[in-house]
Amino acid sequence: MSMGKPMANYAAAKRVGDFVFMSGVVAVDPARRQVVRSFEDIPTEARAQLQTLGYCTGQMTVDIFESPIVAQSWFVLERIRQLVGEYGGTMQDVFKLVQYFRELPHYAPYNRVRGLFYPGEPPVSTVVEVSRFMPGDEVLIEIEATAYLPLRQA
Amino acid sequence: MSMGKPMANYAAAKRVGDFVFMSGVVAVDPARRQVVRSFEDIPTEARAQLQTLGYCTGQMTVDIFESPIVAQSWFVLERIRQLVGEYGGTMQDVFKLVQYFRELPHYAPYNRVRGLFYPGEPPVSTVVEVSRFMPGDEVLIEIEATAYLPLRQA
Amino acid sequence: MSMGKPMANYAAAKRVGDFVFMSGVVAVDPARRQVVRSFEDIPTEARAQLQTLGYCTGQMTVDIFESPIVAQSWFVLERIRQLVGEYGGTMQDVFKLVQYFRELPHYAPYNRVRGLFYPGEPPVSTVVEVSRFMPGDEVLIEIEATAYLPLRQA
Amino acid sequence: MSMGKPMANYAAAKRVGDFVFMSGVVAVDPARRQVVRSFEDIPTEARAQLQTLGYCTGQMTVDIFESPIVAQSWFVLERIRQLVGEYGGTMQDVFKLVQYFRELPHYAPYNRVRGLFYPGEPPVSTVVEVSRFMPGDEVLIEIEATAYLPLRQA
Amino acid sequence: MSMGKPMANYAAAKRVGDFVFMSGVVAVDPARRQVVRSFEDIPTEARAQLQTLGYCTGQMTVDIFESPIVAQSWFVLERIRQLVGEYGGTMQDVFKLVQYFRELPHYAPYNRVRGLFYPGEPPVSTVVEVSRFMPGDEVLIEIEATAYLPLRQA
Amino acid sequence: MSMGKPMANYAAAKRVGDFVFMSGVVAVDPARRQVVRSFEDIPTEARAQLQTLGYCTGQMTVDIFESPIVAQSWFVLERIRQLVGEYGGTMQDVFKLVQYFRELPHYAPYNRVRGLFYPGEPPVSTVVEVSRFMPGDEVLIEIEATAYLPLRQA
Amino acid sequence: MSMGKPMANYAAAKRVGDFVFMSGVVAVDPARRQVVRSFEDIPTEARAQLQTLGYCTGQMTVDIFESPIVAQSWFVLERIRQLVGEYGGTMQDVFKLVQYFRELPHYAPYNRVRGLFYPGEPPVSTVVEVSRFMPGDEVLIEIEATAYLPLRQA
Amino acid sequence: MSMGKPMANYAAAKRVGDFVFMSGVVAVDPARRQVVRSFEDIPTEARAQLQTLGYCTGQMTVDIFESPIVAQSWFVLERIRQLVGEYGGTMQDVFKLVQYFRELPHYAPYNRVRGLFYPGEPPVSTVVEVSRFMPGDEVLIEIEATAYLPLRQA
Amino acid sequence: MSMGKPMANYAAAKRVGDFVFMSGVVAVDPARRQVVRSFEDIPTEARAQLQTLGYCTGQMTVDIFESPIVAQSWFVLERIRQLVGEYGGTMQDVFKLVQYFRELPHYAPYNRVRGLFYPGEPPVSTVVEVSRFMPGDEVLIEIEATAYLPLRQA
Amino acid sequence: MSMGKPMANYAAAKRVGDFVFMSGVVAVDPARRQVVRSFEDIPTEARAQLQTLGYCTGQMTVDIFESPIVAQSWFVLERIRQLVGEYGGTMQDVFKLVQYFRELPHYAPYNRVRGLFYPGEPPVSTVVEVSRFMPGDEVLIEIEATAYLPLRQA
Amino acid sequence: MSMGKPMANYAAAKRVGDFVFMSGVVAVDPARRQVVRSFEDIPTEARAQLQTLGYCTGQMTVDIFESPIVAQSWFVLERIRQLVGEYGGTMQDVFKLVQYFRELPHYAPYNRVRGLFYPGEPPVSTVVEVSRFMPGDEVLIEIEATAYLPLRQA
Amino acid sequence: MSMGKPMANYAAAKRVGDFVFMSGVVAVDPARRQVVRSFEDIPTEARAQLQTLGYCTGQMTVDIFESPIVAQSWFVLERIRQLVGEYGGTMQDVFKLVQYFRELPHYAPYNRVRGLFYPGEPPVSTVVEVSRFMPGDEVLIEIEATAYLPLRQA
Repeated sequence: MSMGKPMANYAAAKRVGDFVFMSGVVAVDPARRQVVRSFEDIPTEARAQLQTLGYCTGQMTVDIFESPIVAQSWFVLERIRQLVGEYGGTMQDVFKLVQYFRELPHYAPYNRVRGLFYPGEPPVSTVVEVSRFMPGDEVLIEIEATAYLPLRQA
Repeated sequence: MSMGKPMANYAAAKRVGDFVFMSGVVAVDPARRQVVRSFEDIPTEARAQLQTLGYCTGQMTVDIFESPIVAQSWFVLERIRQLVGEYGGTMQDVFKLVQYFRELPHYAPYNRVRGLFYPGEPPVSTVVEVSRFMPGDEVLIEIEATAYLPLRQA
Repeated sequence: MSMGKPMANYAAAKRVGDFVFMSGVVAVDPARRQVVRSFEDIPTEARAQLQTLGYCTGQMTVDIFESPIVAQSWFVLERIRQLVGEYGGTMQDVFKLVQYFRELPHYAPYNRVRGLFYPGEPPVSTVVEVSRFMPGDEVLIEIEATAYLPLRQA
Repeated sequence: MSMGKPMANYAAAKRVGDFVFMSGVVAVDPARRQVVRSFEDIPTEARAQLQTLGYCTGQMTVDIFESPIVAQSWFVLERIRQLVGEYGGTMQDVFKLVQYFRELPHYAPYNRVRGLFYPGEPPVSTVVEVSRFMPGDEVLIEIEATAYLPLRQA
Repeated sequence: MSMGKPMANYAAAKRVGDFVFMSGVVAVDPARRQVVRSFEDIPTEARAQLQTLGYCTGQMTVDIFESPIVAQSWFVLERIRQLVGEYGGTMQDVFKLVQYFRELPHYAPYNRVRGLFYPGEPPVSTVVEVSRFMPGDEVLIEIEATAYLPLRQA
Repeated sequence: MSMGKPMANYAAAKRVGDFVFMSGVVAVDPARRQVVRSFEDIPTEARAQLQTLGYCTGQMTVDIFESPIVAQSWFVLERIRQLVGEYGGTMQDVFKLVQYFRELPHYAPYNRVRGLFYPGEPPVSTVVEVSRFMPGDEVLIEIEATAYLPLRQA
Repeated sequence: MSMGKPMANYAAAKRVGDFVFMSGVVAVDPARRQVVRSFEDIPTEARAQLQTLGYCTGQMTVDIFESPIVAQSWFVLERIRQLVGEYGGTMQDVFKLVQYFRELPHYAPYNRVRGLFYPGEPPVSTVVEVSRFMPGDEVLIEIEATAYLPLRQA
Repeated sequence: MSMGKPMANYAAAKRVGDFVFMSGVVAVDPARRQVVRSFEDIPTEARAQLQTLGYCTGQMTVDIFESPIVAQSWFVLERIRQLVGEYGGTMQDVFKLVQYFRELPHYAPYNRVRGLFYPGEPPVSTVVEVSRFMPGDEVLIEIEATAYLPLRQA
Repeated sequence: MSMGKPMANYAAAKRVGDFVFMSGVVAVDPARRQVVRSFEDIPTEARAQLQTLGYCTGQMTVDIFESPIVAQSWFVLERIRQLVGEYGGTMQDVFKLVQYFRELPHYAPYNRVRGLFYPGEPPVSTVVEVSRFMPGDEVLIEIEATAYLPLRQA
Repeated sequence: MSMGKPMANYAAAKRVGDFVFMSGVVAVDPARRQVVRSFEDIPTEARAQLQTLGYCTGQMTVDIFESPIVAQSWFVLERIRQLVGEYGGTMQDVFKLVQYFRELPHYAPYNRVRGLFYPGEPPVSTVVEVSRFMPGDEVLIEIEATAYLPLRQA
Repeated sequence: MSMGKPMANYAAAKRVGDFVFMSGVVAVDPARRQVVRSFEDIPTEARAQLQTLGYCTGQMTVDIFESPIVAQSWFVLERIRQLVGEYGGTMQDVFKLVQYFRELPHYAPYNRVRGLFYPGEPPVSTVVEVSRFMPGDEVLIEIEATAYLPLRQA
Repeated sequence: MSMGKPMANYAAAKRVGDFVFMSGVVAVDPARRQVVRSFEDIPTEARAQLQTLGYCTGQMTVDIFESPIVAQSWFVLERIRQLVGEYGGTMQDVFKLVQYFRELPHYAPYNRVRGLFYPGEPPVSTVVEVSRFMPGDEVLIEIEATAYLPLRQA
């Protein structure tokens, strides 16, 4: 899990050769040490983006079941985008995603959100439903990303 | 349930006084005696409408979990529209809906589909999650509708 | 639930305008304060009627699973017939039934029993499987009936 | 569900002819968008009323299991009283209640609370145990009410 | 299981001394290698017979739960009748039946169907509810029959 | 099941050649049409016999869990003894027993009771735990017995 | 458990030094050897006392879920009062109670009933939810009491 | 169960007339009083036979799930072969098998093993999935066999 | 739990005033650090005692389900006898037992074994079914004993 | 439960003779009326103590599963230390603990925490896993303590 | 998942540097958009290969439980072979497989099928049992493969 | 799984380019073909190391729940250290770990053990809870490791 540096003794990402390997990322807000639960836990701009997909309707009875997975999907992919950015890359360099879900029906909204991060060519993708993630039952998705950023490109 | 006339001995709808009461409607195709399961079980025009909501994407892995509830929602509301039409009314006359679900998270996609049938003022609405519907586990939603069509209007 | 007057503080039925609305009825014998469990809990005439449908066979191993739902179906519909009778109506005036079941396979025997009460035109009908009824697990069916008995008919 | 106007696109209530039909009401505080969980979520006057019934004892170990259903029962019935009030009626005009519970043993405390709202003649009443309500597992009761307020009375 | 010759390496029946022992029979149509699921999987004449018992009503909501066990009961008993017929016997020679069910409430409809095959003296009978049958969950009944056809009768 | 003649249309036992085949026997008292539940449902002499095995202690907290299986075991074996007696045989002629249990730990007390009926050479025996018996959950054991009573012995 | 002397070989209570230790008490009527199930299983005076708490309403649908725990709570505490009375003490001498429940929500009604027996200073109290009590599932509460009755007081 | 003579008071097999009836056989090693769990619990020759079927691969991760049912199948059929051998017969005389399984998917490997014992004409066969066998959860199969060995053949 | 001194940091028993309080005792053999599972885990003399009660029959199929609770009951009570012996007392001084079970039906055999240790006047007794004991699922009973051994008796 | 005086009508502790008996204690913070959930709910000094045992690591993914039981263990034992202190005693006078857990694997961390309170001779100890504690599912441990504080010591 | 190009917006495989990374592959026939369920869903040549392993016996009762995993194993490995072939490689270049199963006992037949694709040196292999795969419950295995195809080899 | 060479046909590790990929490793002792269950299954030196973390206390009731995960964690990481050692690397070259758990609370003790192997900079890390591992339920953790050991470093 990638949950902010002081939280656990592991590396969020590592460059080895031409690759950047990232730890599995979950939607935990590092500042508050809290799992992302709703649209209120992500930035205003993110909400605007998600509304273009039809989510974040403002109707409580619609958002109540959709917001956890939609907000977490955005948070996790954004975190990966930031991580690869620290190595000078963009989302297009993240060529492979292993996506773990607690409930496979969450794939549909996740897939729409991912489209925001991959407007062009999509990555190699593995999807598996598993039992649980750290730090607990509220986490609905974990993604392990790998990027290719060749050193000797120039 | 309203599943086509020859299927069971009950009335699909009845006028009493100024009201038209309808039997609970489920998404069973009367011609094939089969529960609606996917976008392929509803007309092409319906699919086009649903695509304006972002559903019916053509991606198997997205549609697989969304299509049953989205297609059934359309089918059931369309059937209600037809029933009230037989009494000379429109969806605006259907002032009350009792919506039973097998899984409450289905409310979100259902709510978007209902918006297609109620572009204006919405009806009175009750939402409850129950155990099962006729004729079996594949049925995800049942709606009992009531319309007001005063006789002495003119 | 309608279980005899002194049992609970609610009205078994009420006339409002041209309608008679009835409380949900379950098969509790008001005299004995006991749930109807078998053919022995209903009158001899009722048993004779049910035998015309092939039920109440006298074979213990056949009746043991069929008698609870068949006897309760008769009891509840008969109670509705009595209630509407107190307002001067007959079963034909009971134009709408909401039927809750604990087990949907009970619909088949219930439907045959209902045919005894509706030899002619059937009512508007909603069927839903729910979790439980008052006063406990032995109750297999609850019906909420509505009748239309216009005041200014003559 | 009736949870405050801006929350969802449906009508909390509608007059058709001599009737006022209301949407199913659950105990969601519209200001905070939160389910009512304890005596602290309802007004002081409400608590005083409930203490006349022996509830709201101030002992944590007694209130912990009773407060959710008792407070929600009060909240939902009060909301119905307000809705019918908007149409010029009182609780006596609400002649019919369909009460859905998640756990039938909650009927006993609910029934005592309802007595506060119906000191005189009780309404027609249906009681059913179902699976779940919007917006989630904490909601213990939903009530669908209907009132009779004839227009041409005078 | 007896499911047509080329399906498995066992004998459908064997004569030893004066007895004909039969393998357990389940309702698998040998031609289509499919489990019997509804009245459409059995011959027209069978349906007519079953209608004399009140089954096969043509109402979808009634038949949906009754047809699997009723159609399988007929199919299995008919298969036993054919097997004993190959040895020159009739159903009256089948003196013993061990009947395994997945759900004991299926005994009631089964018993009525068996009456069609045993209009006279009934056989020795054992009834047990077990977990599952070959080739899968849709099989609801398996019967092991034994016939007595003495060789030296004449 | 063998539960007294007027209860179901099957034969309790049949002689074919030198064998007497018996239907599966369960502990249902034919007079009262009730499942045997405790030591009070069997004769005084039976209780005395069982006390020689250490059962039927008169201590409520000891008997409460032991009495159902111990009393049923006695009842079923006694019924088999009576059946074979009607054909002129004794328990020694009952050479084979298929014993079905709902809970295998019941085998231990059953085995002690069987010793009362087979003081000498024991029968061939099959023991299987299954799901349920007719007429319901209270039945804990069913036995299918076969006797050998050669006709041309003399 | 304390269920009347002839039922089991244990002591209902024992004095050792200045203490009287009591066996765990459950609500079994020693005369009828039956678990207390409802208000009808306790004396008229007890019912009158319980009505002062708002229980024993006479409404079937209210009493049905409350009566088992309320009646058992009264019965068990009364039995403890009698036991300590046999040693010349009163409820005030019973300084410690270990209260086992099958369902913790029963603590609320139990607590009100205990107030009738401890109008003054309450005892030391331990509350735990466990799995089951002797002699079966209907028993909802067991209490182990200890009294202090110093011998050399005078 | 047939588990070696001194283990229980029943007959492993009995001749009556021309038949040899055998008790249900499970895979319990009589010497060690242990259930057969793996290929190490059966003789070397047996392992060699099973290897001709592709089992007993020596790869731990393959054998771990296959060895219990394959080794038990061999053990039970070999025990039946021995029993009929004690009466002068061979496996061809065992004309009927009732095979009880705890998990029906075990039928496939069992069927291959049975082919080793019935290279020629197969027996009459009944297959049922039940709950459990003696002496416990590790037992996966029980077989009740019957042989025909006419006395007056010569 | 009392499982031999070097196993855990607690006192097996303590004298305070005239009382000896003992830790809860479970059937763990201190030498082998193993839970008692069968008659082979207790001494020969113990087995002889238990045979006088009808247990320890030597029949595998009878002993298999009875031996764990019977052997553990003996082991735990014997351990309590030894503990009180270290303080100069006998089982008669152990005036109170709190007996926790994982399965209440185990009370019957336990009660017979306890009779061996309390041939005279029985102790005060509390019986409760709970979830689990240390060190794991195989432990079926735990007993907390208290003895009265007054110091100033002479 | 001991949860601060104004919360419930029971005594947190009572002296009778030379003993101080305490009510079962759970980790509810009396000021906030909240269950202790994490290291943030206990004082800084407590955290320092627990860090000497290796707990309270500051790594979110390590603390998330350990903090509830470790913090509650500390809280409950500290509360007992305070209670006995009010009677002039220390933890060494608390000679007996009955420790109830919801999950037995919690015993290991609890045991380490207890070592902080019992650096010398440990108490008599009973450990049982039960179902639930007041006031709800978050409570993981309840301890009932007894102290010996002789009056006439000097 | 790799299920044919038009089905979802992801890349079936990607070359980065000397590696070809592939998306997780499941057994979905791209032409029919259907999960592979039996031997009839794979080519004739595949069936012949599988028969050399003893599978695809033609016996319905044997194939019914084996065919789903055996056919899917073949399909998935064949798809990987095709994918690596599109990059000019063979199965020997696929040096690593992560194999997810829904049921670990499926590993044994899968392992035999894999032997057909890796007659020589086997790959690096990880095996994990997880909850579910896209697009639903019928999918029993998913494999994520990685190949090494160095660019600058010549 | 990596469980010793002769156990299964797969490669424990493979060098491709600058990387060494390892198969998923579980704690199976290759010599005994047994899953590691307790501290007794690992070397003395390992136990000494684990005691520095506070584990391996020697108290049976503490070690019983902690030893399986702690010992397996050590075993698996040590096996990875050996594997990378065979390629001339150290644990610092193992830059990435995918850690699968059966129970996420095991992460806390695992994390402490991993600290022994990574005293310096930690690896990239993914943590997921899944259902089961080979060869069975006792395996609590599986780790898939990847090392970077560039060939042309000098």
